[in-house]
Amino acid sequence: MFSSTSAIIELLGTISFAISGTFSAMQRRLDAFGVLIIAFVTSVGGGTIRDLLIGDLPVAWMRDVQVCLVILATSVLTIFFKTHIKKLKVTLFLFDSLGLGLFTVVGLQKGLNFGLNPGICIALGTITGCFGGITRDTLLNTIPLIFQKEIYATVCILGGAVYLLLLHFQVNTDVSKFIVIALIFVTRIIVVQHKLSFPRINY
Amino acid sequence: MFSSTSAIIELLGTISFAISGTFSAMQRRLDAFGVLIIAFVTSVGGGTIRDLLIGDLPVAWMRDVQVCLVILATSVLTIFFKTHIKKLKVTLFLFDSLGLGLFTVVGLQKGLNFGLNPGICIALGTITGCFGGITRDTLLNTIPLIFQKEIYATVCILGGAVYLLLLHFQVNTDVSKFIVIALIFVTRIIVVQHKLSFPRINY
Amino acid sequence: MFSSTSAIIELLGTISFAISGTFSAMQRRLDAFGVLIIAFVTSVGGGTIRDLLIGDLPVAWMRDVQVCLVILATSVLTIFFKTHIKKLKVTLFLFDSLGLGLFTVVGLQKGLNFGLNPGICIALGTITGCFGGITRDTLLNTIPLIFQKEIYATVCILGGAVYLLLLHFQVNTDVSKFIVIALIFVTRIIVVQHKLSFPRINY
Repeated sequence: MFSSTSAIIELLGTISFAISGTFSAMQRRLDAFGVLIIAFVTSVGGGTIRDLLIGDLPVAWMRDVQVCLVILATSVLTIFFKTHIKKLKVTLFLFDSLGLGLFTVVGLQKGLNFGLNPGICIALGTITGCFGGITRDTLLNTIPLIFQKEIYATVCILGGAVYLLLLHFQVNTDVSKFIVIALIFVTRIIVVQHKLSFPRINY
Repeated sequence: MFSSTSAIIELLGTISFAISGTFSAMQRRLDAFGVLIIAFVTSVGGGTIRDLLIGDLPVAWMRDVQVCLVILATSVLTIFFKTHIKKLKVTLFLFDSLGLGLFTVVGLQKGLNFGLNPGICIALGTITGCFGGITRDTLLNTIPLIFQKEIYATVCILGGAVYLLLLHFQVNTDVSKFIVIALIFVTRIIVVQHKLSFPRINY
Repeated sequence: MFSSTSAIIELLGTISFAISGTFSAMQRRLDAFGVLIIAFVTSVGGGTIRDLLIGDLPVAWMRDVQVCLVILATSVLTIFFKTHIKKLKVTLFLFDSLGLGLFTVVGLQKGLNFGLNPGICIALGTITGCFGGITRDTLLNTIPLIFQKEIYATVCILGGAVYLLLLHFQVNTDVSKFIVIALIFVTRIIVVQHKLSFPRINY
């Protein structure tokens, strides 16, 4: 049960980020091949950096060709049905936020499985959640990300802290995962909608 | 015989990319030290990413100081004989294409040796072939690459698929390697000469 | 004694780069969270690349949460006392140079402990010393670095060669470390003050 919940979360995260990557690449008018590459990088980027840092090699997608097929299928379907989606920007944002929540939980749990320090697990969750989107935006050279990057990370750190707290109070692992995914998803939408930001340091 | 063919291909790839890196850096008027660094990064960049992803660590060039000496010697000789080479841009392009073919085969074979899935092996060959040039162009901040990047990758994927097909039909490994290197080299020249490209997706 | 000297050097390097990162980020007027991230990346960037390349995984800071706490404390204290520091640019440069010397020695010694070739150890020392600052400047998008990058690296290579020479002549390890740290620190200040640079290759 535990393992299958993890597998479902990872699958949904992969699909969410593949969709978000495909939309981003289409917005920038890349050719068909470029769209697939961006979808792939967005989907596996965070997990790859995570696996490199903790030394769980070969990295996940190299051991599991099904991940690659899921990304390919998702991206092709997204391109195919693109005409049916009117609000491209909003859709992209929603799938990006969902992927963020899903992958943060995947990274958190992997850190715990490796017996790493709680603080490091939060960092690992944040890296897994954020780096796919960061790599995507870097490759596509989109400017607005720079302003959202920090909010991105803070939401993941908050989610990570809540997850560890829930586990500490013996809340069921699957329930905790669901709560944290929902928390990250909703918090990010609120933060972006209200344009919340950190205070700048005066010098 | 098998091992020595691999070693020769790797040596030739290292030399090709060291030459291509040196030319690129000289075109951008870097100082002597900068030229050596770019030559080195172009030569070992693809293999380093490959070894990191599959976890074959320390990465290849850290275990074999001869690779570093070959790059150093190649780069110094290239700088020394630069006045004898008239068509800098064409020479750079030819060595870059040759290195692409050679390193793609090295990466493909390494993936097969590690028992990875055929699709992943093609990805690994593509990464080994492409990332040296991508890193070089990123560091030198040359714009034109962005347009060629996808053609770069597609040629490698095509070569990888042909290689696996040849091995499947029991063609001799060394013969298969030679065919694929020649295929990638020639295809890339044809693609660039005729300015072939993928269709853009309309949105 | 040996181990404790290493630990002190690593601690001082971490603090130096955390201060240099904090100053850099404040100069660019980042918000509080951004400053912490830049301080962290500057401090652990070089060691992370080093550990990835030699395969000493999980990377150092993932195994030692105290490093993270030291960076956090250093950065917060630096922000707090910033009004007392008049010459921000000079202070940043001094701490950056000190961190460069300290981390180069850490990287060199780690390479020797792993039984790598002397030339590779020098490369590893250079990577450990330079990559924190390079990553910091890349993230902050500061232009001047590009001109200093090569001097950065050359000073580390010089320091590495002297370190291996001192060990070869049986000089005490701790004394050798101190000499090399001082050498890199002083050489870099002289190089930058006198605007020394390498000859450009004419084409």
